[in-house]
Amino acid sequence: MRFAYRGVVPILPTPFLANEDLDLESLRRLLAFVRTIGVDGVTVLGVLGEAAALTDAEARDVLATAVEAAGPLPVVAGASRYGVRATRAFVEMAAESGAAAVMVAPPSVDGIGETAVYRYFAGVCADSPLPVVVQDHPASTRVQMSADLLVRLADDLESMAGIKAEAIPTAPKVRILKQRAPRVPVLTGLGALYARFDLAAGSDGFNTGFAFPEFLVELLRLANAGASEATNALYARFLPLVVLEQQPGPAIRKEIWRRRGILASARVRAPGAQYDPATDEVLTQLLAEATANADLTAALRLSDLIHS
Amino acid sequence: MRFAYRGVVPILPTPFLANEDLDLESLRRLLAFVRTIGVDGVTVLGVLGEAAALTDAEARDVLATAVEAAGPLPVVAGASRYGVRATRAFVEMAAESGAAAVMVAPPSVDGIGETAVYRYFAGVCADSPLPVVVQDHPASTRVQMSADLLVRLADDLESMAGIKAEAIPTAPKVRILKQRAPRVPVLTGLGALYARFDLAAGSDGFNTGFAFPEFLVELLRLANAGASEATNALYARFLPLVVLEQQPGPAIRKEIWRRRGILASARVRAPGAQYDPATDEVLTQLLAEATANADLTAALRLSDLIHS
Amino acid sequence: MRFAYRGVVPILPTPFLANEDLDLESLRRLLAFVRTIGVDGVTVLGVLGEAAALTDAEARDVLATAVEAAGPLPVVAGASRYGVRATRAFVEMAAESGAAAVMVAPPSVDGIGETAVYRYFAGVCADSPLPVVVQDHPASTRVQMSADLLVRLADDLESMAGIKAEAIPTAPKVRILKQRAPRVPVLTGLGALYARFDLAAGSDGFNTGFAFPEFLVELLRLANAGASEATNALYARFLPLVVLEQQPGPAIRKEIWRRRGILASARVRAPGAQYDPATDEVLTQLLAEATANADLTAALRLSDLIHS
Amino acid sequence: MRFAYRGVVPILPTPFLANEDLDLESLRRLLAFVRTIGVDGVTVLGVLGEAAALTDAEARDVLATAVEAAGPLPVVAGASRYGVRATRAFVEMAAESGAAAVMVAPPSVDGIGETAVYRYFAGVCADSPLPVVVQDHPASTRVQMSADLLVRLADDLESMAGIKAEAIPTAPKVRILKQRAPRVPVLTGLGALYARFDLAAGSDGFNTGFAFPEFLVELLRLANAGASEATNALYARFLPLVVLEQQPGPAIRKEIWRRRGILASARVRAPGAQYDPATDEVLTQLLAEATANADLTAALRLSDLIHS
Repeated sequence: MRFAYRGVVPILPTPFLANEDLDLESLRRLLAFVRTIGVDGVTVLGVLGEAAALTDAEARDVLATAVEAAGPLPVVAGASRYGVRATRAFVEMAAESGAAAVMVAPPSVDGIGETAVYRYFAGVCADSPLPVVVQDHPASTRVQMSADLLVRLADDLESMAGIKAEAIPTAPKVRILKQRAPRVPVLTGLGALYARFDLAAGSDGFNTGFAFPEFLVELLRLANAGASEATNALYARFLPLVVLEQQPGPAIRKEIWRRRGILASARVRAPGAQYDPATDEVLTQLLAEATANADLTAALRLSDLIHS
Repeated sequence: MRFAYRGVVPILPTPFLANEDLDLESLRRLLAFVRTIGVDGVTVLGVLGEAAALTDAEARDVLATAVEAAGPLPVVAGASRYGVRATRAFVEMAAESGAAAVMVAPPSVDGIGETAVYRYFAGVCADSPLPVVVQDHPASTRVQMSADLLVRLADDLESMAGIKAEAIPTAPKVRILKQRAPRVPVLTGLGALYARFDLAAGSDGFNTGFAFPEFLVELLRLANAGASEATNALYARFLPLVVLEQQPGPAIRKEIWRRRGILASARVRAPGAQYDPATDEVLTQLLAEATANADLTAALRLSDLIHS
Repeated sequence: MRFAYRGVVPILPTPFLANEDLDLESLRRLLAFVRTIGVDGVTVLGVLGEAAALTDAEARDVLATAVEAAGPLPVVAGASRYGVRATRAFVEMAAESGAAAVMVAPPSVDGIGETAVYRYFAGVCADSPLPVVVQDHPASTRVQMSADLLVRLADDLESMAGIKAEAIPTAPKVRILKQRAPRVPVLTGLGALYARFDLAAGSDGFNTGFAFPEFLVELLRLANAGASEATNALYARFLPLVVLEQQPGPAIRKEIWRRRGILASARVRAPGAQYDPATDEVLTQLLAEATANADLTAALRLSDLIHS
Repeated sequence: MRFAYRGVVPILPTPFLANEDLDLESLRRLLAFVRTIGVDGVTVLGVLGEAAALTDAEARDVLATAVEAAGPLPVVAGASRYGVRATRAFVEMAAESGAAAVMVAPPSVDGIGETAVYRYFAGVCADSPLPVVVQDHPASTRVQMSADLLVRLADDLESMAGIKAEAIPTAPKVRILKQRAPRVPVLTGLGALYARFDLAAGSDGFNTGFAFPEFLVELLRLANAGASEATNALYARFLPLVVLEQQPGPAIRKEIWRRRGILASARVRAPGAQYDPATDEVLTQLLAEATANADLTAALRLSDLIHS
C-alpha cells in the first residue's frame, strides 16, 4: 500500500517530563487523541518535535512508540540529518520501525548551492525504502530551494512523495508547484498562519503542528466542500490563537496540549525557550474565544461552533 | 517642543512610478491622507520605505517632501547607516530638513557584539541634534539586542527617545522593557500582527506600516479606553488582512495604498519582489470583509464597523 | 579606449584622519605612490575602502580625488548598492567623475536566488555607461554565485568586463571560469592569500588590497615570465605578512600604509575595529623579514630581494 | 589523573572507504602513527572529523576505536549537540568509552544570546563526568562568544578544562584570555594558519588538524625553547602548505593523510566537497617543498630540515 501525502497530517511535539526525560506515556495519549479526530497521518521528529535535541536512541523510541500507538494512521518521521549517509541510515531505521514515510529538509550548510541540494535529495531518494517528503523551510534550514529545483526533484526522484511548502510567501510557490509538479502533493505548514491563502493557492492540506488538529481537519473539509464562507469564518475564528501559537519554538503549543490533558508537562529541552507564564492570561482568553469555552480535553465540535 | 514617541506613528512606503522614479506627488497624497485620521506622527525611510534602495539625494527629497506635507505632524526619519559617522551625517541632514526624530537600527554586521552595538548607539546619540528611536528588528538587521542592552541604552543615553520593539516574541520583551526602562516609550510594529498581545504587554502604541493606519488609531483608542472586548473584536476583524499584508516586502502594502487612491503605482524597486497579481482575488475579498465593503479611498469609519 | 581588467589593480583604503574626517591628502599621496610602481589601475570604494561607512557625497569626493590623482591609471569604483536603481545612479556618477569601470557585488539579501541575482546584474549592465566588474565575494555579501551563473552573466552581458573571484576555494572556480567564460578576465583578491594557487589556476592577476602592491606586480611579472621557482619564493617570503594582513577589516593594512608614510592615520570608521597596538611587535618583525629591513617609505625593489 | 589541555592535540579526520563506510582500520593506523611523534593527546569527532555526518552509533565506534588505539594518549571527543540534554548524553557515552575529555561548541541557534550560551555550558559542565573544552569557532557555529563570556565561564565552571580559541582574529582574544582567565589553558586551531601569531599572543599550543602534526610538535618545542628565529623559519617553511590545507572542508587534509599511507581513501561524506584532482600538481609541489622531498609515509624529521 502506497503512502499518500494528503489531507491533515499533524506534526506532533515530543513530550518531556519536567526533568526533560522523554515522556512516552504522553506521546501515546497524543496519538490516541489524534486517532479520534479524522486526521490522515501524523509526523513525529520534525523541527517542532525538537528532533535536534534527541539522541538517535531517543528518536528511535519516539518513532517506535508513535507507530505502535498510531494504529492504522501512517506515521511520517522527520529524518533530516547533515549528510546523505546519516539520513539514509535514519531512513533505514525508520523503515524498520514501521514509519510510512520520511520528511527531509536540505542540510543547513552555509552557501550550499542548488546542485549540492539536488545531489543530497537524489542520494537520499535513490532506492529509498520509504517515500520521501521534501521540506522547504528556510526559516530552520537557512537554505533556499527555488521552485525550479523543487520541480526538478519531483520530476526526477520517484521516491519523492510530496512537498511541505513553508517558504514565505507560501501561496505563490504553492501555485507554481501545483502547476509545474502536479505529480506530487503539496501540504503547507507554518502553524496554519497562512492556511486560507494556502488553500486558495491549491495546497492539498496541512502538515503542521497547531494544537487543535481538529480545526485543520474541519478547515480542509469545508474548503474541499466549496464552503468558502464557512472556511473563511473558521479561519478567522481561530486566527488570533494561531498567531499566538505559531511564534518560534514549541513552548506555547506544548502548553496548549498540556491544558488539553494530553501532555504531562510543557517542558522544552534547553536551550529552547520555556513557556512564559506571563502569557497565561492572553492564552486563556484566546482559547475561550476560539472554542466558545469548550472543554479543551475533548475534541472540539467545530461544525457546531461555526454554524452558531 | 520635545518629541514624544507614542500613539500611532505609521511607517510610510516610499512611492515610485512604474519606471521606479520617485513619486513625490503620491507621497504628498499619503501625508495629506494620514493627517486626517488622528495619527501622532509618521515615519519615513524605514525598512519598508525601501530606504536601502534610495540614494542619499533621494532620501533627502523624500524627507523634505514629507516634512513639508506633514504640517504639524512630527516626522521620524529612518537613519540607519553602517557606521556612527554616516549615521550622524544623516541625522544632521534630517535635523536640517525638519525631522522631529530619527529611528536607528544597529548596523548589520555579522558577529557584532553587544559592546560594539552599545558604542554605536552611544556614538549616534552623543549630542544628537534629534531624539533617537532605537529599532530592535533582528529580521532585517540579523543583530540581537538583549533586553539588558536596551535597558542600559535607555539608562545611559539621554537622546534615546523610544524603542521600536520588533524582536519576536515581542510581548515578553515589551513587558521587561516597560518594567526596567520606564523612561522610554515602547512602540511595536511587525505590521500589527501581534498588536493584541503587544497592547496586553504594555506597548505604548504602534509604529508600523499597515495600510489602514486608522485601524491602528482605533485599536489603540479602544485599548486605552479599557474596551478590551471591542479591541479584540477589531483586531480579529482585520487580522486575516494583517496576516496577508505583513509578509516580507512592501508589495502588498503598496498595492493596498494604490487601491486606496493614494499611490499611483505599487512598484517596488528591484530586486525587491513586485506585487503578485495572483493575490488579487484574495486581497479583494479580505479588503471587502475587513471593511464591510467600505469605500477604500476614504478613511474607514471603524467605530461604525465594530459596533455593527 | 576600452578598459581592460587585468594585471595588478590594487584596492585602495579610504584614508581618514584621527577624528574620522575624510583625508583626501593621504589619498593623493597613495595614488602618487602607486603610479610609480607599475600597477595597471586602482580600485577605490571597495569593501576594504569602507565604502559602506561613507555618505554618497564622501564617496563622490573620494572618487573625484582618486581620478584626478591617478593620472593615466584607470580607476575602478566600487558601486555596489542595494538595488538596480541605486547602483545605476552611482554608476552614472562614477562615469561623470571619470571612473574607467565599476565593481559591483550582488545585494546582500537573505535568500536571494540566482534568478534575482541575474536580474540585478542584467539591470545594472543594460546600457551601462561604464564596464562592470562582477565581484564574487560571499564573505561580505553572504550571496553565493555558482560558476554556472557567472558564466551565464559573462555570456549575456556585454558590459561585463571581468570577474573578481573571491569565493573560497578560489582556484577551482578560477579554473572553471577561465575555461567556460574565456571572454572575461578573472582577477583574484582576498589579500593575495591564495595568490600562488590562483595563478596556477589561471587567474589573470590581482585586484586586492595588500599594502605592498609592488609585491603583487613582481609576483605576476615572474609568473607571466614562467619563473615559477622565483614566483613561489617571492610568495613564500611575503606569506607570513600576507596572512597577518588579510584578516577581516582594514586596520592592519592601514597601519602598514601609515608606516609607509602614505596615510596620516590608521583610523577605521566606527564600528569597524581599530588597529590593535599589541600587534606592533609581530608586525614590525614581519615587515623587517619580508622586506629585508628595507625603507618602507620607498617602493620595494623586489628583484633584488628575491635573487639575494 | 586529571586531563591537561596543553601541547599539541591533533584533530583527527574520520576515515571513510570509497563507499563512505566507516574505515576503522585507517583510524587505527592514524592513531598508531600519531603515537610515535610526541603529541599530547588527540581529538576525534570534531568539525573536521565530519561528526555531523555520523550516526550516534558510528560516533561511538570511532571513539571506542580511537581510545583503544591511542594507548596512553588522552582522547578528546567532540561532543557538541543541539541541547544540554543530548550533549550530556553524549558526554556520558564518551566517559564510558574511555575519553579523557570532551570538546563542546555552543549550539548553532540564530540569535542565541550570551545568557543562553552561558546556561548551555553551565548545564553541560554541571557534574560532568569529563572535563570540558569550550570551543570558540564562530565559522562553524555562527555564534559569537565575547571574551567576557569566556572569562565568566572559566571563572564559574570547574569542569571547564580549556578554551579552543578559533575566533578570528585569534591573537588579541588569546591575549585577553591568558590575562583574565589564567586558570584555563588556551589552544588554537584553524589549521595553524595563525600559529606564529597565536604563540606570540600566549597560546598554550595547538588543537588542530594539520596533516603533519609533527610540524606542530616541533613548532611548539622551538617556541617553548625560546628559539624564535627557528620557530619563524619553520612556520614560514610550511605556511604555503598550511594555507592550501586550511581551506574549508577536510578534503585536502584527507588526501595528504592518504598520501602519507595512513588513510585508505580521501573520501568525504556527501554533501561535503571531495578532493579536487586539479589540486594534485600544486599539492605535490608544496609537499615536496615543505618536506624537502622527504618520504611522507614516515614521520618528518623536522630538526634536520630547519637547520639545513
